[in-house]
Amino acid sequence: MSEVIATYLVHDASGNLQKKAEGIALGLTVGSWTDLPKLDQEQLLKHKGRVVAVEQFKDDPKVNQYLGKSVTKGLIQIAYPSANFSSDIPAILTTVFGKLSLDGEVKLLDLEFSNDLKAVFPGPKFGLQGIREKVSVFDRPLVMSIFKGVIGRNITYLKEQLREQALGGVDIIKDDEILFENDQTPFEARIIEGKKVLDEVFNETGLRSLYAVNLTGRTFELKEKARKAVQLGADLLLFNVFAYGLDVLQSLAEDPEIAIPFMAHPAVSGAITPSEFYGISNQLLLGKLLRYAGSDLVLFPSPYGSVALDRKETLSIAYELTKDDVSFKTSFPVPSAGIHPGLVPVLMRDFGSNSVINAGGGVHGHPDGAIGGGKAFRAAVDAVLSGRKLTEYAQHNSELQKAIEIWGYKEV
Amino acid sequence: MSEVIATYLVHDASGNLQKKAEGIALGLTVGSWTDLPKLDQEQLLKHKGRVVAVEQFKDDPKVNQYLGKSVTKGLIQIAYPSANFSSDIPAILTTVFGKLSLDGEVKLLDLEFSNDLKAVFPGPKFGLQGIREKVSVFDRPLVMSIFKGVIGRNITYLKEQLREQALGGVDIIKDDEILFENDQTPFEARIIEGKKVLDEVFNETGLRSLYAVNLTGRTFELKEKARKAVQLGADLLLFNVFAYGLDVLQSLAEDPEIAIPFMAHPAVSGAITPSEFYGISNQLLLGKLLRYAGSDLVLFPSPYGSVALDRKETLSIAYELTKDDVSFKTSFPVPSAGIHPGLVPVLMRDFGSNSVINAGGGVHGHPDGAIGGGKAFRAAVDAVLSGRKLTEYAQHNSELQKAIEIWGYKEV
Ligand SMILES: [Mg+2]
Ligand SMILES: [Mg+2]
Repeated sequence: MSEVIATYLVHDASGNLQKKAEGIALGLTVGSWTDLPKLDQEQLLKHKGRVVAVEQFKDDPKVNQYLGKSVTKGLIQIAYPSANFSSDIPAILTTVFGKLSLDGEVKLLDLEFSNDLKAVFPGPKFGLQGIREKVSVFDRPLVMSIFKGVIGRNITYLKEQLREQALGGVDIIKDDEILFENDQTPFEARIIEGKKVLDEVFNETGLRSLYAVNLTGRTFELKEKARKAVQLGADLLLFNVFAYGLDVLQSLAEDPEIAIPFMAHPAVSGAITPSEFYGISNQLLLGKLLRYAGSDLVLFPSPYGSVALDRKETLSIAYELTKDDVSFKTSFPVPSAGIHPGLVPVLMRDFGSNSVINAGGGVHGHPDGAIGGGKAFRAAVDAVLSGRKLTEYAQHNSELQKAIEIWGYKEV
Repeated sequence: MSEVIATYLVHDASGNLQKKAEGIALGLTVGSWTDLPKLDQEQLLKHKGRVVAVEQFKDDPKVNQYLGKSVTKGLIQIAYPSANFSSDIPAILTTVFGKLSLDGEVKLLDLEFSNDLKAVFPGPKFGLQGIREKVSVFDRPLVMSIFKGVIGRNITYLKEQLREQALGGVDIIKDDEILFENDQTPFEARIIEGKKVLDEVFNETGLRSLYAVNLTGRTFELKEKARKAVQLGADLLLFNVFAYGLDVLQSLAEDPEIAIPFMAHPAVSGAITPSEFYGISNQLLLGKLLRYAGSDLVLFPSPYGSVALDRKETLSIAYELTKDDVSFKTSFPVPSAGIHPGLVPVLMRDFGSNSVINAGGGVHGHPDGAIGGGKAFRAAVDAVLSGRKLTEYAQHNSELQKAIEIWGYKEV
């Protein structure tokens, strides 16, 4: 059957999860049932929501105390027939979590799309393997660095920063997500000038970095802007999906004229994901839905840095991005924020080779500058891949040595 | 100075809110300061974030116990120069609550836009007064009713339901927010057929209702669809703003060819607003930002119904929608969900005459059907306006009497 099965975590004061589940299944679909005439029931049967499962957990005294009421914690699964909505994310979200999001302690944990429904979503256009082909790196995690402190700076400043980063041997360099359209470093100039710098570095050194430029502005101008970026030779587009909407990303990713990868930034998603009682899970929002909507790379806070996310949450995001799915290519997980070379062993243990190691301060703050930072990260990756301790490898690699002296390290 | 001042509620484990505030002000703007050369400081001064205020509250033991750590609760206000972002909601949200939303217990309570920045936002095209003119009602709250149980039903069914509601004397009738594009009751047919029904009722009875049709589908098709709706004579557009994005609403509201009012539905906003620790306040999201972005009417859960919101929260939304602001028209507050005629006295006490009384089950569930439900609501409004008790007025009004018998009442 064509449907979406939603899984909710509820903390419910009524004490009867089965009844609550039945109320949701009817209330968010056909409205009522037992009082309907037989003929109406026949007509509406294919629109009726269905309780798939109800599971009750044991009481959590800390939660009861905090909420100031005794609640039953549990999972509720409801199947919503596709006949009830158009096949787009806004309609699906409104159906499964529109009014319900406003109705007490209910968190949306997962959505399971039937295969026919999955088929309408684009998924990543390039995906993890396509990105690997673009950078010609197949046997290790990619290394990415971020422009830092570029607000108010001119294009010369940006070009120098870009050059330094590229010389360190990073695979991808991304705009800061808070760099918007501005007179000094306009979008198109960043693409054009950035390309020149990266070509120069390649010609001089053989090192090839790609540049992810931040796609910003008014929603209805994004398609033209992205198409223009492609024409100008942009490598990738960084996009603050949650400042716009998942359907906006999907529409851009579906556009055949926007034939470059999308890198989704998690900005603003923390307004939705962190509560245990409300919102939408990281696994669904940053994992499954970003992949379905067409993100080739997905940034999220790592468990180890300055802005940290619970390790299990980060693993659940990476799992959704990379698990086998006949309908979609895989996406690159990019655990981010506060990453330094000494964290490479734990990052590679957690996220494996099919991930991107991404750093800002951990590149730019290196004593030898961004060049040294990039080299230190590449060295740390080589150390782990060759099964050596960072400290051992650092004896013959001064960039890694200096990084470890400043930021420390965690072996696994 | 052109800027946005953001107010955050923080629960911070570091114990130093002033330092935290300074970290935000720099970290989300120029990155660093004291270590910058003098020349750079001069160049970047107009981009530097500024701590406006820091206020510490007293400890909340319940919160400390729940979070499992001792936190300092307080307000932090940061001013972000407009020079740092383009003048659109995605850029502003990403600046003030992009990365920060992911960084521990931080809730965005308010954004204060300088006047030059406000000037770029449309605000409501019609506003509260413009809606009053459309329905020719100036001296009382409007009464609105909602289609119910229309999924899977055909156009004949919808037309009958529309007719019943109109005959009850309601001012506006709105689509259910979970009615999407479908074969049986397509968007355009609903507009065309709905218009015929409402004209018939007007010709027969002199009662004039407007119909708010649900604008749904893919983001980049919404403008064409909305323009078509206007050409077909639609009265208003219902829109699930938070399933799309605030900038989408703004873009539609700004379009001069979409010259009908927008009614914003709060669907999915409960993923963002309810936590005390995370997300965005109702006052800002459903109040200020929906008004700035161009909503003429805003639905939100009332404090009294089935899906209830804290009374203070509802009053803060209504305050933002209706307060004097030289830049914008006011918007109609529409407290909703589980409303019956017996709640009209408390609703009018809380929201005054400049509000819309909106009901689904409280109209359709009336013993005399939707006609009786509408009449009962109109009677309840008349009772309150004429200073009489509902029970007293009901002695001479059988519809109100029956409503009270089923659902009860609350006098003030
Ligand atoms: Mg950043
Ligand atoms: Mg509804």
